[in-house]
Amino acid sequence: MPKRSFASDNNAGVHPEIIDALKDANEGHVVAYGDDPFTARAVKTFEKHFGKGIAVFFVFGGTGANVLGLKAITNPYNAVICAETAHINVDECGAPEKFTGCKLLSVRTPDGKLRIEDIKPFLHGVGFEHHVQPRVISVSQATEMGTVYTKKELKTLARFAHDNNMLLHVDGARIANAAVSLNATLKEITVDSGVDVLSFGGAKNGMMYGEAVVFFDKKLATEFKYIRKQGMHLPSKMRFISAQFEALLSGDLWRRSATHANRMARVLATELAKLPQIKVTQPVESNGVFAEIPEKYVPVLQKKYFFYVWNEETSECRFMSSFDTTEDDIRDFVELVRKTVK
Amino acid sequence: MPKRSFASDNNAGVHPEIIDALKDANEGHVVAYGDDPFTARAVKTFEKHFGKGIAVFFVFGGTGANVLGLKAITNPYNAVICAETAHINVDECGAPEKFTGCKLLSVRTPDGKLRIEDIKPFLHGVGFEHHVQPRVISVSQATEMGTVYTKKELKTLARFAHDNNMLLHVDGARIANAAVSLNATLKEITVDSGVDVLSFGGAKNGMMYGEAVVFFDKKLATEFKYIRKQGMHLPSKMRFISAQFEALLSGDLWRRSATHANRMARVLATELAKLPQIKVTQPVESNGVFAEIPEKYVPVLQKKYFFYVWNEETSECRFMSSFDTTEDDIRDFVELVRKTVK
Amino acid sequence: MPKRSFASDNNAGVHPEIIDALKDANEGHVVAYGDDPFTARAVKTFEKHFGKGIAVFFVFGGTGANVLGLKAITNPYNAVICAETAHINVDECGAPEKFTGCKLLSVRTPDGKLRIEDIKPFLHGVGFEHHVQPRVISVSQATEMGTVYTKKELKTLARFAHDNNMLLHVDGARIANAAVSLNATLKEITVDSGVDVLSFGGAKNGMMYGEAVVFFDKKLATEFKYIRKQGMHLPSKMRFISAQFEALLSGDLWRRSATHANRMARVLATELAKLPQIKVTQPVESNGVFAEIPEKYVPVLQKKYFFYVWNEETSECRFMSSFDTTEDDIRDFVELVRKTVK
Amino acid sequence: MPKRSFASDNNAGVHPEIIDALKDANEGHVVAYGDDPFTARAVKTFEKHFGKGIAVFFVFGGTGANVLGLKAITNPYNAVICAETAHINVDECGAPEKFTGCKLLSVRTPDGKLRIEDIKPFLHGVGFEHHVQPRVISVSQATEMGTVYTKKELKTLARFAHDNNMLLHVDGARIANAAVSLNATLKEITVDSGVDVLSFGGAKNGMMYGEAVVFFDKKLATEFKYIRKQGMHLPSKMRFISAQFEALLSGDLWRRSATHANRMARVLATELAKLPQIKVTQPVESNGVFAEIPEKYVPVLQKKYFFYVWNEETSECRFMSSFDTTEDDIRDFVELVRKTVK
Repeated sequence: MPKRSFASDNNAGVHPEIIDALKDANEGHVVAYGDDPFTARAVKTFEKHFGKGIAVFFVFGGTGANVLGLKAITNPYNAVICAETAHINVDECGAPEKFTGCKLLSVRTPDGKLRIEDIKPFLHGVGFEHHVQPRVISVSQATEMGTVYTKKELKTLARFAHDNNMLLHVDGARIANAAVSLNATLKEITVDSGVDVLSFGGAKNGMMYGEAVVFFDKKLATEFKYIRKQGMHLPSKMRFISAQFEALLSGDLWRRSATHANRMARVLATELAKLPQIKVTQPVESNGVFAEIPEKYVPVLQKKYFFYVWNEETSECRFMSSFDTTEDDIRDFVELVRKTVK
Repeated sequence: MPKRSFASDNNAGVHPEIIDALKDANEGHVVAYGDDPFTARAVKTFEKHFGKGIAVFFVFGGTGANVLGLKAITNPYNAVICAETAHINVDECGAPEKFTGCKLLSVRTPDGKLRIEDIKPFLHGVGFEHHVQPRVISVSQATEMGTVYTKKELKTLARFAHDNNMLLHVDGARIANAAVSLNATLKEITVDSGVDVLSFGGAKNGMMYGEAVVFFDKKLATEFKYIRKQGMHLPSKMRFISAQFEALLSGDLWRRSATHANRMARVLATELAKLPQIKVTQPVESNGVFAEIPEKYVPVLQKKYFFYVWNEETSECRFMSSFDTTEDDIRDFVELVRKTVK
Repeated sequence: MPKRSFASDNNAGVHPEIIDALKDANEGHVVAYGDDPFTARAVKTFEKHFGKGIAVFFVFGGTGANVLGLKAITNPYNAVICAETAHINVDECGAPEKFTGCKLLSVRTPDGKLRIEDIKPFLHGVGFEHHVQPRVISVSQATEMGTVYTKKELKTLARFAHDNNMLLHVDGARIANAAVSLNATLKEITVDSGVDVLSFGGAKNGMMYGEAVVFFDKKLATEFKYIRKQGMHLPSKMRFISAQFEALLSGDLWRRSATHANRMARVLATELAKLPQIKVTQPVESNGVFAEIPEKYVPVLQKKYFFYVWNEETSECRFMSSFDTTEDDIRDFVELVRKTVK
Repeated sequence: MPKRSFASDNNAGVHPEIIDALKDANEGHVVAYGDDPFTARAVKTFEKHFGKGIAVFFVFGGTGANVLGLKAITNPYNAVICAETAHINVDECGAPEKFTGCKLLSVRTPDGKLRIEDIKPFLHGVGFEHHVQPRVISVSQATEMGTVYTKKELKTLARFAHDNNMLLHVDGARIANAAVSLNATLKEITVDSGVDVLSFGGAKNGMMYGEAVVFFDKKLATEFKYIRKQGMHLPSKMRFISAQFEALLSGDLWRRSATHANRMARVLATELAKLPQIKVTQPVESNGVFAEIPEKYVPVLQKKYFFYVWNEETSECRFMSSFDTTEDDIRDFVELVRKTVK
């Protein structure tokens, strides 16, 4: 197997600058569970990006970040509206339902992006006790289909949410990729666009582990420290997550890595699109490429490169790039595809 | 503040050999979520310690390990019997109740250790649908009071559990300290003593993060992979937990570190016991020292050394040693105490 | 307002024979919570209908019956597959998700009936820990759209369920109406058709309160008594539910009432269909009539008769008949409709 | 077996005036789920007793009333403080933990009554995220031991609760017996004493089924209608619960029945106390009598009269009287006891 594949941005390792930060943080004793100078510094760095007035909490991983963030802003009789393809809907083994008690109301979309027309029908039962009460619109940015919401689209969703007594939650496992894609700051595509709660992704952007839950209105987070602990996501040696975030966000590492990954995805898509047997199915707006590959070739390719078939019916496959993908990786893979489909 | 304190074994950093292992694991791509060679190797290492036939799963942290391990062997109408001082009972913000639905039936003990006489009264309601149904006896080894169950005590509890349709769960956040204390192998004090499920602690023994849930009967773990994912504790870049466990357990690092920490606790206790104003309250059998310090001195000491008051009523304080505690640390601290209480 | 409307079969009162049974049961003391002769007798009566080897439990209401029955046969990481219109999906305010922890996977259908083609795509993720694991197919019989599964359709679903490690659950809030519609016994359309668990409806068939959860394989019910109690559905004065079921099922009351209600629905549909402005939208197979009424007339009619608009987009309205609906009721109502739409 | 026993006030049937009310309510159609004139009237009657400004909701049973009332005023990381003997703690099969997610912190008491000295130690961890956060003090009035809180005791608890950011919840399964015992109105021992939420018991006071959750501050109940529905406790034919409450509370039926039951308990206790072999263990302040009966006689008596052994260690037994207990019942039973223990 090659050293690098396109199965997932989670298959990559850790950026060397992050490894260095971990080593540097390993000095002496600090209070556990977050009351330490590393965490204080990392929180300040988040404030530099997103503005004062936020509340930010670090957790172990992405499913925890999503589920606990949603828990903080819902009651169990609420509903969370999301795209059918949302990570919370299909890839968290029912963790949101189990921990929040909420129903997820999902919408079939062509591109992983919610539109307010999709959401309106769910509002018929507001105030009617037999129906779950929609409280959150949750979008993924970038989406699981590699697409990206524009700032305008986010604002429209946020306004609609707020006009209807709902909040806008963003699963930002790939928020860095989205910011780069939109040539925007992190602030512009979150708090400035009306987002209320954000899962800020670390692992898919080169960290070893660790995600952040960011509340853009501190009042939403008053009790979050209890939710995080009861949610089994209060890391004891917190400093090591904080130090990673500091390394990622105090300079431009987050942006460099995301820019590179996005560019690699575009290159891969461009190359695949040259093969007539292969159909790129989604606009490549972040670090994912979706392409239909004739079914018979898939197992042949998977012998050499591990990747996921996204849609068994259409033989649509997913390819993800990461901070460490190289042009050589792409050339080798495309060469194999070319040979195979001939 | 000194570089090292006695507040918690979580305040220490990471053992340098663990840091090296993390660096070494950061090479190329591997499949995420545990289907990687690092994890396969770490699982084999657990099997070397505990025997074939186990099922072992890595999770992010200790609360997750306890709660998810308990979830795997209970239904929500079950009860878990534990000591009042158990971490699951007092230090997990109700996570066990929230995620398992079970009631915890707690027993007041002098030393953090459960005895079958404490447990018997809870069995009156077995079969009576109005009462929760006891299903698990959960003990901490070493206990939160720094004491250690002997192999015989464990066997007695295990036999009693099994005779009464219950299972024996061990919160082994400090299982290494207990093994060292008993001069036993890990196997002798777990599977050989009748333990059914173990939370194997990493962080308190020098890892950065990561714990393991070990099932000594594979059948108990059939569905655990879903419980772990739905429980928000499936790490994406799993290899970095696996590599730490491999470093800890493939040689004698786990034993070296625990031996040192236990010895430092004994030294500290010996020194404190020399001060007539101070009363060491628990046998020092692992890496914790409990001592009553007259209330008025506590804030004075806490200005220089962060530590926890364990019992406000008696001014009993807790001091923990770790793999990196030095004799100098102890000398400096005891010196301060001596001066303060004079 | 007229004494009887068509809003819901829950708006009717209690059949006089049921009231008599309640009075008769009110004699002396009996042990609470079900260990009484009334309950023993009612259980026997269920066995007469469904055969020996069943386990039957009485609960307060229909949502409880559905949710607790599902809880008995699922783990929280499981999924329950149902029609989008299912009561469990839209009319229980998320109770199934909250209490079972499971995700509901819903299918859009034209007539409220599931088909195996709808279910198959959900099986792609079986064994994959990121996805919820389908464990139950839940159908409503009769459906919320007034349609009825044939025995053959049920058998097909049951076989498919069992072939795929799933169970077939029936929400039988209107099971009597379905049996009458199919000219079948209760046994033929449940256990003989492969159904595993049944919510047997009492209230919609003329009882005051009380539903039954029937397990056709006793092994599925081993622990149900605890689930019922923890699920807040163990009635203290159980005998009064049991006496009602005895009155309903020991003779032909259940069948008489359902036969009448079904007939009244057909009469109503026939009359409404004569009006060219009105379109009956579903086959009338039980006691519900669905009809599109031009939007402007709806509020006019609702001034005199309370009923529900089922689909705001199409102005489809629902009309339910019950054991006490009379031909006069229908004539009066249809007369009003006729005058209004002219 | 005799027609009446002393096992439980749930073993009695239904007061004849309640049966009449049920019959009278069975006329025509009304909207289901509570939007009906019977319910409107019953709510008004509650307001007459407790004052305007309350919010009252009817549910099926007592466990539901307790659990859902607690859910309305807690978050899952909260704790509920109660006596070890509380119904919520020992007789609801863990329903409170399962549905609210909260931990119950229980206090051993001699008489089933909480005192603030018992509660204070639980407040040490307020604000500390590792500990559950106490939010509710829950008392039973009358208690499960047959004792009754005075108004002063309630006020002391309420003030302490409110001073510490907690609320006072009352499990009033036997609130009528307590009011009679204190020669007080229902209002005096609830809202006037600082109680925040009350489970108002119907079944133990002669109803067939049905309890009420009463919030003395409407703001606490804003979302309760969803909690009730998601909690599986929204009765469809609500009018039949409402009619029972109307019959109970519009006149003095509630008081007559409770007065009688309390008096019968006193008579029974007086008679039992005359037997030197028997020790009445609790003050008889409501309708329960607790008495130690030498262990060997218990099975002999239970052959003729079903009753519960409350404490296996001391052979303490519980005897409950109800609205329909007669002096003959007592004479016969005491006669049997007398003969048996001789």
